[in-house]
Amino acid sequence: MDHGYFTNDHVNLDILRQRSYSMRWATLEPDVIPLSSADPDFPPAPEIIDTLKEYLSGGYMPYVPPLGITGLRETIASGLKQRKNENVRPEWILPTDSAARAMQIISAAVLNPGDEAVIFDPVDLMFGVSISMAGGKAVYYPCTKEHGHWDFSDLESYITPKTKMLCLCNPHNPLGKLYAKEELAKILEIANRYDLCVLNDEVWSDIVYSETPFHSLMEFPEEQTRKVLTVYGFSKGFSMAGIRGGYLICPDETLFQKVFDVSAVGTTVGGVSCLTQVAMKAAFERGFYWVDEFVAHLQACRDYVYQRLNAMPGITADKQEATFVSFFDIRETGLSSEEFARQIYEIDRVYLVPGTDKWFGPGAQGHVRLCYATSHEILEQALDRIETGVNRMMKR
Amino acid sequence: MDHGYFTNDHVNLDILRQRSYSMRWATLEPDVIPLSSADPDFPPAPEIIDTLKEYLSGGYMPYVPPLGITGLRETIASGLKQRKNENVRPEWILPTDSAARAMQIISAAVLNPGDEAVIFDPVDLMFGVSISMAGGKAVYYPCTKEHGHWDFSDLESYITPKTKMLCLCNPHNPLGKLYAKEELAKILEIANRYDLCVLNDEVWSDIVYSETPFHSLMEFPEEQTRKVLTVYGFSKGFSMAGIRGGYLICPDETLFQKVFDVSAVGTTVGGVSCLTQVAMKAAFERGFYWVDEFVAHLQACRDYVYQRLNAMPGITADKQEATFVSFFDIRETGLSSEEFARQIYEIDRVYLVPGTDKWFGPGAQGHVRLCYATSHEILEQALDRIETGVNRMMKR
Repeated sequence: MDHGYFTNDHVNLDILRQRSYSMRWATLEPDVIPLSSADPDFPPAPEIIDTLKEYLSGGYMPYVPPLGITGLRETIASGLKQRKNENVRPEWILPTDSAARAMQIISAAVLNPGDEAVIFDPVDLMFGVSISMAGGKAVYYPCTKEHGHWDFSDLESYITPKTKMLCLCNPHNPLGKLYAKEELAKILEIANRYDLCVLNDEVWSDIVYSETPFHSLMEFPEEQTRKVLTVYGFSKGFSMAGIRGGYLICPDETLFQKVFDVSAVGTTVGGVSCLTQVAMKAAFERGFYWVDEFVAHLQACRDYVYQRLNAMPGITADKQEATFVSFFDIRETGLSSEEFARQIYEIDRVYLVPGTDKWFGPGAQGHVRLCYATSHEILEQALDRIETGVNRMMKR
Repeated sequence: MDHGYFTNDHVNLDILRQRSYSMRWATLEPDVIPLSSADPDFPPAPEIIDTLKEYLSGGYMPYVPPLGITGLRETIASGLKQRKNENVRPEWILPTDSAARAMQIISAAVLNPGDEAVIFDPVDLMFGVSISMAGGKAVYYPCTKEHGHWDFSDLESYITPKTKMLCLCNPHNPLGKLYAKEELAKILEIANRYDLCVLNDEVWSDIVYSETPFHSLMEFPEEQTRKVLTVYGFSKGFSMAGIRGGYLICPDETLFQKVFDVSAVGTTVGGVSCLTQVAMKAAFERGFYWVDEFVAHLQACRDYVYQRLNAMPGITADKQEATFVSFFDIRETGLSSEEFARQIYEIDRVYLVPGTDKWFGPGAQGHVRLCYATSHEILEQALDRIETGVNRMMKR
């Protein structure tokens, strides 16, 4: 059954213009369409809203346990098994106030100043940010998935005696790609052979299209995943970036204690709002049907974006296997990513994220990221504008 | 007008037993009365709940601005002027996910490893925790307020060349005391003369009784308060410990930038949930009448607790000027704080917080803290039990 939640009628621009920050509706001129931050234009599942209202009707919002409200960790662990075949015990889970915080906590727990962590290039900026907050050094590993396969043949050459962590973005943002089980086995084998932790970011793991299955490092046997530290947040698949909800998974008991100490949830310096925890639990208990309908909508958006972008002169776009962002190649326009994004914003009034060092690492140059988690109508209008801009650029 | 929110009928033990952690109802056997963590047994103002429900009806919970939702800082600044005569500009305010986090951020911004910070002894544990998280050293300044006056004559002797910060808990937890304006002037004069920052914790500043006015360091002229860093949280006066809401105030622009960087709200590693921000704004806009009624109820509780405790053999209790905790002297019982609290818990079934180093510093020994933010009926039952226990102790 399709509830019709992802039609243009469900995009409420009045509310988005009041509430949606981070380079989106509330921060831009009213004639600009933001396809920038990866934050959907659709509100979250009504069941989550209803559960929050019921909780509020009980009145009290007192101190909650540092490791999560009753049943939260069990609900997450069983949801991960059912949805993603991940082998996660409840006691390995630490609720966090965002995936970004989880990445920072893990980096601080694993790295000493001067230690190195290998990150894919390009990749989401939070890897570099969290490593640098811990005083570590991000070593960029240029990555590509071509002809359906990642080439990890030279990954080992980026490992030095100072390397303490390998970073995996699964699914990969901004490339929109998945990993085959044997590719993950290779990563795990390398990590274990060099005794490295893996920072395994699965914040995008709900947004996976029908052609290619999602595989997780946490599918592998327990004895192989002890040093895999997984991160998740409720901003993408559940469209609740503002509640600051997420969790990390750490199977190793000693390392978990370290992660717990760094998080400072035991002292109340750290912690997750009771309302956020209620929303996270409701999402896993009652929200997955909504995610499935969201993904079906996004898959149609993906196909449309792919077709439209590739029909434009000078633009080459991959077809995403996962995520709701397209990271398209603009090199034939002769413009830098910044200049392309600047013109499309200033002249054509669509806000995109340029493939710059700041956002995605040095390997992002020549690309621009477009978030398509909106209605077909808004997407069509935005792509018309981008097409106008690209035609103008190519005429010069 | 009294809405009658603070009667026994408004204490919902069924919900408290599900939701209230941190040494309270949900963590203890059902026959135990917790007068432990400073978290009220009453739900917050209905206007806050209603505002949250209205926000939720709008559906979206997207990324919010790192410095707070529209109008939040202005609302706080104007509320502080009206309620507490504090001179605070909106741009000095950084919303934080709890007062505890604000204290940690300030300590990390002000202290380098090895730096000293002078803290009162006894005082709330979060001063020591945040200083130690920053790698600093807490220097205990034994404090007493006797005959209505603090004696700060030897405060300067605790300042060394390594001292970077003076810490003030205003009102003072656990002593329940206020500061006269001239006493605050003295603190400020010393801090400015030695070029020290002041960590000014005003988390209790709403709970002030009718006899003694509240004065704040932020009443003083701007040129004197540039290095006063104030902390506030919504856990005490607004009874919303679980939402993790608070703010810090930093009038100095350079220091504010440092505080902002340490908080990591600019990177999304740090931040405050959109729902929490909505609740904080609603509290300042629509919740102060509720605080006034709460304080009126608490004042009656304070008088009752004062009378009952002092009627017990071997117990001496001060009358609080502020806060909803009594920190009573049990030395005549001949028991340590731990042993007194253990017996009252294990035999008499009331959970109190012992005056130990861990909770309040070395100067807390010989005292026990009792939180009286509950109904008269629960308080009466708890004090009956404590009286039974004390009579038993004194007979030995």
